[in-house]
Amino acid sequence: MFFDSFDSAQLESQLSGDRFTAVYRLFGNENTARSKAEDICAEQTVEFPVKLLPKTIAEKITGTIENFEKESEGIYRAAISFAEETAAVEFTQFINVLFGNISMKQGIQLVSVIPSKKILDMLPGPQFGISGIREITGVPQRPPLFTALKPMGLSAENLAELAAVFTQGGIDIIKDDHGLSDQVFAPFEERVQRCAAAVKEANVKFNRKAVYVANITAPFDKIIDRAYRAKELGAGGVMLSPGISGFDSLRKMTEAGLPVFAHPAWMGGMAMNPMQGVSCGVLYGTLMRLAGADAVIFPNFGGRFPLSHQDCMDIVTESRKPAGTLRPMFPSPAGGMELKNIRSMIENYGSDMLLLIGSGLFSCGDDILENCRKFIESAEGC
Amino acid sequence: MFFDSFDSAQLESQLSGDRFTAVYRLFGNENTARSKAEDICAEQTVEFPVKLLPKTIAEKITGTIENFEKESEGIYRAAISFAEETAAVEFTQFINVLFGNISMKQGIQLVSVIPSKKILDMLPGPQFGISGIREITGVPQRPPLFTALKPMGLSAENLAELAAVFTQGGIDIIKDDHGLSDQVFAPFEERVQRCAAAVKEANVKFNRKAVYVANITAPFDKIIDRAYRAKELGAGGVMLSPGISGFDSLRKMTEAGLPVFAHPAWMGGMAMNPMQGVSCGVLYGTLMRLAGADAVIFPNFGGRFPLSHQDCMDIVTESRKPAGTLRPMFPSPAGGMELKNIRSMIENYGSDMLLLIGSGLFSCGDDILENCRKFIESAEGC
Repeated sequence: MFFDSFDSAQLESQLSGDRFTAVYRLFGNENTARSKAEDICAEQTVEFPVKLLPKTIAEKITGTIENFEKESEGIYRAAISFAEETAAVEFTQFINVLFGNISMKQGIQLVSVIPSKKILDMLPGPQFGISGIREITGVPQRPPLFTALKPMGLSAENLAELAAVFTQGGIDIIKDDHGLSDQVFAPFEERVQRCAAAVKEANVKFNRKAVYVANITAPFDKIIDRAYRAKELGAGGVMLSPGISGFDSLRKMTEAGLPVFAHPAWMGGMAMNPMQGVSCGVLYGTLMRLAGADAVIFPNFGGRFPLSHQDCMDIVTESRKPAGTLRPMFPSPAGGMELKNIRSMIENYGSDMLLLIGSGLFSCGDDILENCRKFIESAEGC
Repeated sequence: MFFDSFDSAQLESQLSGDRFTAVYRLFGNENTARSKAEDICAEQTVEFPVKLLPKTIAEKITGTIENFEKESEGIYRAAISFAEETAAVEFTQFINVLFGNISMKQGIQLVSVIPSKKILDMLPGPQFGISGIREITGVPQRPPLFTALKPMGLSAENLAELAAVFTQGGIDIIKDDHGLSDQVFAPFEERVQRCAAAVKEANVKFNRKAVYVANITAPFDKIIDRAYRAKELGAGGVMLSPGISGFDSLRKMTEAGLPVFAHPAWMGGMAMNPMQGVSCGVLYGTLMRLAGADAVIFPNFGGRFPLSHQDCMDIVTESRKPAGTLRPMFPSPAGGMELKNIRSMIENYGSDMLLLIGSGLFSCGDDILENCRKFIESAEGC
């Protein structure tokens, strides 16, 4: 009626038939959940009353409910597939189909993503991954030791001194705190130059292979420049908070050729509601890995943040599970971890993780070198 | 003890003394709420035990609780100020200080943002705003009429035909549906070229001043090119979903010089939890306006989305309230609005809004021109 000139044969000829799938948890009784599933099919694609659509669009462009089942009382689970062409070979539009408009609806949680082949071709994932970072740092088996340069307010020179001490002390990866960007008291250029040089010098002096990771979360038009500049200045990795700068900035930034450490800042609100949003596993696991993160920092249960044990296990599973050609990504539980947490972290996650202890390396004693020694001892003792 | 070489006089000399302020709602009893407020001061800046900090950092870099008061039983409100230097003259780091790590904590909601002068200099806000869009569309008083080209699956030619009919019918602003990016069935280049040309031709033929708005939500490295290309091809505005591409991509994109329409996709999860995240007023109002959006589309109460009346009023207030040199931004309530909703929308928000009716322009009758006539009549009748 409205679309007389629509050419259904042309549309059909443009579709490969390959589809990607998203799994949603839907809250409510069976009828409510089923109508949420049906709603997702249209809301995420055509945003149009299905009964008014041309038949081919209704059948091929709206999502298809592939499976619908009860998970427990009041919780259902729907697997919905979408023609891969709806995502336009763009990570941004892929994210929009998965959870764009329905992010504003209640009782819908995105809990699993199964990309199609074309989506995976577009998103090759980690360039280095677990084995790459192990090779760079020369740590074949135990969890590499990871810490952060802080607090904000120190000068670039102060931070570089700390970086040298951590290197001497045996820490494998030393990153900027995620709040260090380009502040007047520790400007990006000077900080990265000094910290990279300090780690390099200490590596030579103490026969170490420590890596300095520069935070490059930055204005839209400076992210890529900072990634390349960090590399030039000798950083061994870069960190980005894609909640702030967008997942696709992470994908693009991998082109600088350094290992990428993803930080969860800002996007927590998406995952803090058990009945809505995006599950921790998808947000910090699946999407970070698809974006190309080599390691993901996430707030571990039992620290300063309220994630559950299951949330964390889901992140770790999504980070490391076999997934076609995607390399495994290092999970890095963090957020208030102390030396006393190391045993349970290793028991929970095994040794394929980064042990990130930040301020906990200061609070366990007055002598940083001695604290580093305890850190190594705790990690090797497990 | 750790920071012997820290130069406190140097840090003091680098701080202007100007501060920006964020207001948080804190859930729990008074003790819990107060400790959440204290936690925010450190978590958003130094991420370090305050008792171990050098004195100047503890006093000048961590946040300061400026006000703490009870809002109602179990809800407190804290105004916390931060040295503007913590935000490094970067929108991205400003966002990180406002709600980076604490997005992962529970019972904390960001409800108000008061930028400092330097932050406002960095974020000049809407270039056109309400008066600019009224001038471009030649609609001095009533709400401009706004609709969307849909459904996904139509060809660029089909969409252009629709755009011509809407122009003839008297719609003032005709945008791509937010899911149209660069799909094979309606590629960006062809779609924008055809739709812009169709609107231009119909404007001449029917003596109209309608504007076509191209969706440029795109991969990180294509957003800016698409904004400029849309302008070259004759689009009168661009639309972006900064939840997906990052708020700072919107700021940067304003440089193309076209009115910017912001879409709320993906970030809804941040605002869907009444006890956590970012309030609708801040997320869709304050931050969109600071980023430079000339209009913001948001899901109106009483439509397909569950926002409350108060949420929507907050967005509208933040969009239009006097705020230094920031131009007012057009609020555009949407999401399942129909002709029958127009009267209550105007009663609620007054006439300084964009009346966005998308699929409702199809579902109210078989003849689009006739439906447009009813749309105008409803808007003018109020």
